[in-house]
Amino acid sequence: MTTDLPERFPIDADKLDRLAEIAVKVGLRLEPGQDLFLTAPIAALPLARKIAEAAYKAGAGLVTPIFSDEAMTLARFRYGSDASFDRAPGWLYEGVGKAFAANAARLAIVGEDPMLLAEADPAKTSRANRANAIAYKPALEKIAGFDINWTIVAFPTLSWARRVFPGEPDDVAVGKLADAIFSASRVDGDDAVSAWRAHNLALAQKTQWLNARRFHALHYSGPGTDLTIGLADGHAWHGGAAAAKNGVTFNPNIPTEEVFTTPHALRAEGRVASTKPLSHQGTLIEGIEVRFEAGRIVEARATRGADVLRTTLDTDEGARRLGEVALVPHSSPISSSGLMFYNTLFDENAASHVAIGQCYSTCFVGGDRLGPDEIAARGGNASLIHIDWMIGSGSIDIDGLDAGGARTPVMRGGEWAV
Amino acid sequence: MTTDLPERFPIDADKLDRLAEIAVKVGLRLEPGQDLFLTAPIAALPLARKIAEAAYKAGAGLVTPIFSDEAMTLARFRYGSDASFDRAPGWLYEGVGKAFAANAARLAIVGEDPMLLAEADPAKTSRANRANAIAYKPALEKIAGFDINWTIVAFPTLSWARRVFPGEPDDVAVGKLADAIFSASRVDGDDAVSAWRAHNLALAQKTQWLNARRFHALHYSGPGTDLTIGLADGHAWHGGAAAAKNGVTFNPNIPTEEVFTTPHALRAEGRVASTKPLSHQGTLIEGIEVRFEAGRIVEARATRGADVLRTTLDTDEGARRLGEVALVPHSSPISSSGLMFYNTLFDENAASHVAIGQCYSTCFVGGDRLGPDEIAARGGNASLIHIDWMIGSGSIDIDGLDAGGARTPVMRGGEWAV
Ligand SMILES: [Zn+2]
Ligand SMILES: [Zn+2]
Ligand SMILES: [Zn+2]
Ligand SMILES: [Zn+2]
Repeated sequence: MTTDLPERFPIDADKLDRLAEIAVKVGLRLEPGQDLFLTAPIAALPLARKIAEAAYKAGAGLVTPIFSDEAMTLARFRYGSDASFDRAPGWLYEGVGKAFAANAARLAIVGEDPMLLAEADPAKTSRANRANAIAYKPALEKIAGFDINWTIVAFPTLSWARRVFPGEPDDVAVGKLADAIFSASRVDGDDAVSAWRAHNLALAQKTQWLNARRFHALHYSGPGTDLTIGLADGHAWHGGAAAAKNGVTFNPNIPTEEVFTTPHALRAEGRVASTKPLSHQGTLIEGIEVRFEAGRIVEARATRGADVLRTTLDTDEGARRLGEVALVPHSSPISSSGLMFYNTLFDENAASHVAIGQCYSTCFVGGDRLGPDEIAARGGNASLIHIDWMIGSGSIDIDGLDAGGARTPVMRGGEWAV
Repeated sequence: MTTDLPERFPIDADKLDRLAEIAVKVGLRLEPGQDLFLTAPIAALPLARKIAEAAYKAGAGLVTPIFSDEAMTLARFRYGSDASFDRAPGWLYEGVGKAFAANAARLAIVGEDPMLLAEADPAKTSRANRANAIAYKPALEKIAGFDINWTIVAFPTLSWARRVFPGEPDDVAVGKLADAIFSASRVDGDDAVSAWRAHNLALAQKTQWLNARRFHALHYSGPGTDLTIGLADGHAWHGGAAAAKNGVTFNPNIPTEEVFTTPHALRAEGRVASTKPLSHQGTLIEGIEVRFEAGRIVEARATRGADVLRTTLDTDEGARRLGEVALVPHSSPISSSGLMFYNTLFDENAASHVAIGQCYSTCFVGGDRLGPDEIAARGGNASLIHIDWMIGSGSIDIDGLDAGGARTPVMRGGEWAV
């Protein structure tokens, strides 16, 4: 075997061990006897192996890995027949849904080249994504609804490192990406489990404060930004650890810095400018400026990638409305790194953000008992897309507004005011 | 990525391309639009990639790979809780069964370390094998019943090469195993597809001759061997290409040298000595000598591994009776190589052999319409095991016997007499 990257690249073996431990003990909080379904790019094999070992040591039932391979994905887009782009492995996803129904936990390692399909025919990638999304939907709903404990962690693959650190020699790029992942994932220190306990507590204090205030809206002001975002009726703020319906308290994302909730789809007003580029399906969209009226984006500009932005906004009616509002302090470790990861797991934790498209049903009080109509009635948005988009920086102030218009400082200069 | 073994080890890239082509065009005869389910050890990634490319070029629907990893398997046996050894991924196998029902083709790349679990607790491997076999049975029945086109090919992984060529440097071992696989798989020459057409024709001539003779029994004589094996009522000889129920004519094994049929479970009489060691679950069994009475092994000895042999024979009643009889000329390429591969895909093609245990229902005239009782009534054996065991050599003569006892030479000195 020649896939043991740590031998070849400067990836700290102790920190990789700790990341595997955090993935199993904090991300999943895997229960003794619980099966684990694990997905990873083959290039992330060193972490997948350590996670399997940590899972078995924690008393896992059976660990079942499914690996993806970038070269095989590319072969499909290079040589596949036209009909192949409407195919999806429904039989596999149906099985995955059954595994979740039988209480298997779910772990995803990310590390794919974010530009892998940048040169593929956009019509083919869009058809393939659509076919896959439809086939995966029943299983994804169990994830999105927190039926079981699940988590996402990252491994510094070479193909990803080359995008984040272009121009660097391979070993330098992988080493730098590894350091950035370990630091953001809070496994630099010896006692990472305690570090995560403290971090979850800090995030819980913010969500408790916000949930007690029950703001009617948030107001953002800063360079190019004067925006009021209404919050959904009965919205609930979440962040850090979450409770799954199977009774396990888990951390869905490693790393995570955000607290987030569901905005009201009909109540956004004003202008907002993006503070970071948005990497979407291999395209970089920069300098986004949009204007909202009654919750809908009625004007949209970008200095780069404007056509991709417009196509995205035209996906469906919900694509022009907000589905998530998230607060991240400007001093967060990922923001401080100054890096663009081209991966939402990291980039959404670098700044306060909003997402256009689908909302989270879990971000309502009693959300697990609400049907789609009840969620819509409370202002929850629905769409085929969910795209996070950074609007925070060190020069953004955010106020909480009550129904009467009274203001409470939430963030000042990008930092928590509470 | 660092898994591209061809860059590191002396594996002929042209021959690897040809093996992928033969796997898709001869092994599977993949139909345009047909999905492909592919399994492989991660160490076989270079061949898996070439097969995916060849499949898409041949018009495949979707290629879905599932990779196994030796280190993750070992982690289970080292660290898994006691309860984990009774678990199996039933949700996955159920999905695989659905893929076959929807006409997906199936390709397996073998290349695992044959001694991977040699040091694991035999009680755990046996429980894990049993749980897996039970969960996989519905999908396996579609394979064994030739519902769809499927094939098995081999890749020279390092862990396997080290077992076949112990003491050689890694690159030499892999290079030698690669050469042996390519040669046995008949991809040495430029036109491998034609070579396989000729080979399938030669095998078909033997099965046609044997099927026309409808022998009542075969008689084997040679050093330590004086054995009569009755053939099942309505038996059919097979070899080389086979017809699947989905209408595709495919080659289930790459390589293959055997023609084979179902013996009568109640009609074996006499003594037989093994001509090669038998590699079974990490143990080598050598110098086997057994005596049959009325189809049943009533005496069994071995100069090495006798206890494993006895335990195996005690699996169930059918484990002491024959389920396959196969003829392979002593001059076959795999026999000529003189190598022990520790993998049935190769070793069973090095010599005429028998298997104790389960018979093939496809080896009856009209076998796809016969139920278990009808197969048993015709002499077909049933067991949880099927273990091939070499009894051919250059000094074995085989005669066909008709019901009245008249003899027809079938093999002389290990070579076809017809
Ligand atoms: Zn977010
Ligand atoms: Zn989001
Ligand atoms: Zn055989
Ligand atoms: Zn056999």
